[in-house]
Amino acid sequence: MNTQLIQTLKGFRDFLPEEKRARQFVATKITEIFERFGFEPLETPTLEYASLLLGKYGEEADKLVYTFEDAGERKIGLRYDQTVPTARVLAQYQNELPKYFRRYQIQNVYRAEKPQRGRYREFTQCDIDIFGSISPLADAEILACTYQAFKNVGFPNIVIKVNDRKTLLDTLSRFATEQVGVFTIIQSIDKLDKVTPEKVIDELVAKGLAQEAATQALEAISQAQATQSLQNIIALAENLGIPKDAIQFSSVLARGLDYYTGMIFEIILPDYQMGSFAGGGRYDNLIEKLGGKNVPAVGVAFGFDRMVEAAKELKLLPKNQSMAQVLVTVFNEEFANTSAQVATQLRAVGIRTELFPNSTDDLGKQFKYASRIQIPYVAVIGPEEKENNVIQLKNMQTGEQQQISIEQAIQLLRL
Amino acid sequence: MNTQLIQTLKGFRDFLPEEKRARQFVATKITEIFERFGFEPLETPTLEYASLLLGKYGEEADKLVYTFEDAGERKIGLRYDQTVPTARVLAQYQNELPKYFRRYQIQNVYRAEKPQRGRYREFTQCDIDIFGSISPLADAEILACTYQAFKNVGFPNIVIKVNDRKTLLDTLSRFATEQVGVFTIIQSIDKLDKVTPEKVIDELVAKGLAQEAATQALEAISQAQATQSLQNIIALAENLGIPKDAIQFSSVLARGLDYYTGMIFEIILPDYQMGSFAGGGRYDNLIEKLGGKNVPAVGVAFGFDRMVEAAKELKLLPKNQSMAQVLVTVFNEEFANTSAQVATQLRAVGIRTELFPNSTDDLGKQFKYASRIQIPYVAVIGPEEKENNVIQLKNMQTGEQQQISIEQAIQLLRL
Repeated sequence: MNTQLIQTLKGFRDFLPEEKRARQFVATKITEIFERFGFEPLETPTLEYASLLLGKYGEEADKLVYTFEDAGERKIGLRYDQTVPTARVLAQYQNELPKYFRRYQIQNVYRAEKPQRGRYREFTQCDIDIFGSISPLADAEILACTYQAFKNVGFPNIVIKVNDRKTLLDTLSRFATEQVGVFTIIQSIDKLDKVTPEKVIDELVAKGLAQEAATQALEAISQAQATQSLQNIIALAENLGIPKDAIQFSSVLARGLDYYTGMIFEIILPDYQMGSFAGGGRYDNLIEKLGGKNVPAVGVAFGFDRMVEAAKELKLLPKNQSMAQVLVTVFNEEFANTSAQVATQLRAVGIRTELFPNSTDDLGKQFKYASRIQIPYVAVIGPEEKENNVIQLKNMQTGEQQQISIEQAIQLLRL
Repeated sequence: MNTQLIQTLKGFRDFLPEEKRARQFVATKITEIFERFGFEPLETPTLEYASLLLGKYGEEADKLVYTFEDAGERKIGLRYDQTVPTARVLAQYQNELPKYFRRYQIQNVYRAEKPQRGRYREFTQCDIDIFGSISPLADAEILACTYQAFKNVGFPNIVIKVNDRKTLLDTLSRFATEQVGVFTIIQSIDKLDKVTPEKVIDELVAKGLAQEAATQALEAISQAQATQSLQNIIALAENLGIPKDAIQFSSVLARGLDYYTGMIFEIILPDYQMGSFAGGGRYDNLIEKLGGKNVPAVGVAFGFDRMVEAAKELKLLPKNQSMAQVLVTVFNEEFANTSAQVATQLRAVGIRTELFPNSTDDLGKQFKYASRIQIPYVAVIGPEEKENNVIQLKNMQTGEQQQISIEQAIQLLRL
């Protein structure tokens, strides 16, 4: 086997069981909440017509879309995000989908980027959105569902920073010049959580704004108040279960992307400073701009990889153990059927059980195997146990060992 | 939006919520069993070096692998199956993986085939395998896990046809000629479940076998007995929970693929005649042949799409309903916060609840919406309900409506 064959492409990852279990844990916890909020699952194909994907994300991004020609000379491409295919779905199935469509989607996307620490060419995107409603109720549902999803993973402190794009536009428009447009100003303001106000002013001046205008712009935006619409959304979000101190109005929160039209927000985890873990807002014109229908929308994208990383660091994941709760050993070949019966009884009540898949390894090797892959309990059924209709059950962590009936073992393993 | 943009590529599918829920139901049910048997999850990248994928599946198949050159002039390709990447994983992480490695894998694969009814260019493969063991215990675990997975989806009758590749080879080798090899004979025998014995004889004769040899070959294989090794596996499988009458020895079961080396099997659903729904067996030389280590293996591939289709036809899926169990309506804008509080109380106990995302639609429209997307219950909180701290709950199927407390509603919705 040559060396090229036994490696993955740069920027692509294998998820071995331990890592995959961690990812499944986070995905299961957030999906549970999405469904509790009535979001419906959606899946779109990995491959689409390249013409659907190109020209949607800007010139720079077009270079990052994986495209190629298939055998039928169609120009096709790999999913780059979940919003563009969803815009297609909204147009293609407009008669089948309900007027208000809330969907969640967890799929991998592909970007031909230079791989670097924490940036991959294939990664998981996780989005929830409500399409069709301009009501603050929809904004609040997104905020509340996002908060509860993080809570369900087990994050102890969750902060939602929230703002209204209109505040930024109304406050900053008067400082814009022909040379320095309002979105250019917003992009500098967006850095206030990372750099000092002085640095932001310097950047605005470098962009071409007068020193005084830049200073006034910063002052004005720092003092801006929440719009009535945002206050409504926040009140609803609190009634939807977000604690008062978890939701913070931030007049300088800008979010990089131009397409937001109303409420914008980010999730911060104070225990794990690493930027935002989810971000979203209202984007009423984007779906139409992407070639879809004129559909108002509000949603959020979860930083799935980051969430898994933070959940690991904060020790929120179930202890690193094998999938099986118990290994049923095989005393020797003659006992294989007896061990099979014991495994079956345990599985029948839902206990995750591995039957050792070899009757010629001695018990020592079988225990070593269990300890190697961190199976918490090991069951032995030898001649004595078989005769007395019991099993020997060993707790691999404490070393405690006891001869007990299957029923007692079930009680114990169910704890 | 031009027409090309609002369509998927031929052979690719969108899964709208109803269909996606059906697929999630089947996936969840079988995964539950995989994990109960101690199988560990694994995920490999969508893209691999083309050199890993090509030359592994035969010349014909190579044409069906999607390959292209990336921006870095690497020849890359899309996952064609899950066995070849797993062979790479076994080689690449040999020091990290346990000696006996049981893994499950549910991922999409891509094939540039001519799309036709029931054949897609992107579809879900679902495999379980045990690597590293030559013991009949491993064979039996695969059989038992497969059976229980089908059972857990709810299929009422499940038949496992089982044979030993050695029986076929031992019995048929003496009929092979230079022109008609034993695998060529096996490929014709494999059709016995679809065509008459006469047709199979005709085919063998057409291939170049003498009429008498063909007739004798068929007679010999029909009378062949199960090997001792297969009898051991069957006994273990029964002790692992497969009912005696669900497992049937079939000396003519051949399975098309050449790489099997021992036990082979197929799952048949007598209630839904459509060929096999899963197939597998022992393949001790394949991993090495694919460029991996010399690792014995036994496993099965589930026909995931087919299972979903059959589960639908046999009405095994939860009734076609929206994700939400209840829609909490919004009486008018002033009641939005009250409705939000009710939704939060229901969600807090795990009831899947949609809060109607618009306060300007009247109640009639909100009921129509619930009925359109088949939400089973609708809750109304108007002035009277708010004052008395109750809700009006309507069963959308029976039309029954009652004014009850939140606690009573929770009781009812939990049923």
